[in-house]
Amino acid sequence: MNKTLDAKPRPGRGRRPGGADTREVVLDVARRRFLADGYQAVSLRSIAMEAGVDVALLSYFFGSKQGLFAAALRLRTNPAVAIAEALPGDVAGVSERLLRKMLTVWDDPASSAPLRAMLGVAGEDAATTRLLRELVERELITPLAKLIGGRDAHKRAGMAAALMSGVVFSRYVLEVEPIASATVDEVVRYLAPALASVLQPPARAPRRTSR
Amino acid sequence: MNKTLDAKPRPGRGRRPGGADTREVVLDVARRRFLADGYQAVSLRSIAMEAGVDVALLSYFFGSKQGLFAAALRLRTNPAVAIAEALPGDVAGVSERLLRKMLTVWDDPASSAPLRAMLGVAGEDAATTRLLRELVERELITPLAKLIGGRDAHKRAGMAAALMSGVVFSRYVLEVEPIASATVDEVVRYLAPALASVLQPPARAPRRTSR
Repeated sequence: MNKTLDAKPRPGRGRRPGGADTREVVLDVARRRFLADGYQAVSLRSIAMEAGVDVALLSYFFGSKQGLFAAALRLRTNPAVAIAEALPGDVAGVSERLLRKMLTVWDDPASSAPLRAMLGVAGEDAATTRLLRELVERELITPLAKLIGGRDAHKRAGMAAALMSGVVFSRYVLEVEPIASATVDEVVRYLAPALASVLQPPARAPRRTSR
Repeated sequence: MNKTLDAKPRPGRGRRPGGADTREVVLDVARRRFLADGYQAVSLRSIAMEAGVDVALLSYFFGSKQGLFAAALRLRTNPAVAIAEALPGDVAGVSERLLRKMLTVWDDPASSAPLRAMLGVAGEDAATTRLLRELVERELITPLAKLIGGRDAHKRAGMAAALMSGVVFSRYVLEVEPIASATVDEVVRYLAPALASVLQPPARAPRRTSR
């Protein structure tokens, strides 16, 4: 799993650009760099340079930094893409769309195994913690804030994201009942309105919380 | 840290009941047993037996199983007690009381350090994961369900607990912004109404209209 570049030098044979070897080399470099430097600091260009390939090849292989990230971390489902699929549409329905998408991805063991592994070491392993933090901030909170708009959009999106992370943490990591064995429909029925209320701009001025 | 009973046998000296040694022996036994067997399966009586002391002494030292648990896991703040302090009162205000209490305990590094450590290994370490699951189910969801009452009380309490765990996980483990640096008042302002809406009995039944 932890092959390094040094472990398989191919000085004489030459490397076929675009071949399977190149892909593996790129993924090894990317995985190491994402974990060492975090998502934000790493660029496609710098990975291409370190792997000794053209940056165009990385775009061809992986589409984007998100795609490379998902491939490098062996994520079958790219969280950023899943979120991006769920966001578009009316603001009123975005809570339900996000919840359903999230539960669908996580309920599938093949999709969620690497995500669970990452979540399992969050708090212990600083690099993984930072990666997850950046993922949530960049791929969920920022675009969600843009979608809902209005006053405090970033704060409201962040608060909603916190609640969503609790669904994941309780259901898939702690496996707390009754949420662990609830159906997707149940979770949506109980929680989508609460999430929606966080995403709504406050009906009146802040100061008072009562209704 | 991992002293075992076998490591300090005192056959000849005799053990002073109630002395510092006894207390440490009991804590060692309790810590090992809670992690090996889970919170639920362990009784004060079985720990007393294994430690070779009277069960009355354990009650005297630690008050209850919860108290022994907190002491054994080196928790300065006992989560069960903190929750029990926040629960009583009107149902309408319980979300805010719980959120405030939770944030107060976790915002204090001295109180939250051991809790953070436990949360950090959740998902990796099966024993700790089970302990946390049992804590949430027993000390938060069950009494909260009892307080709010009504149809689906247990499900609603469980869903609310999942959201609360997300506040903790995002703010203190992942340290996601903007919730990580938000004030307690802000978190309460944005999230207490959402939590309250989960705890409220549904305004209408799936089949019939009632309140």
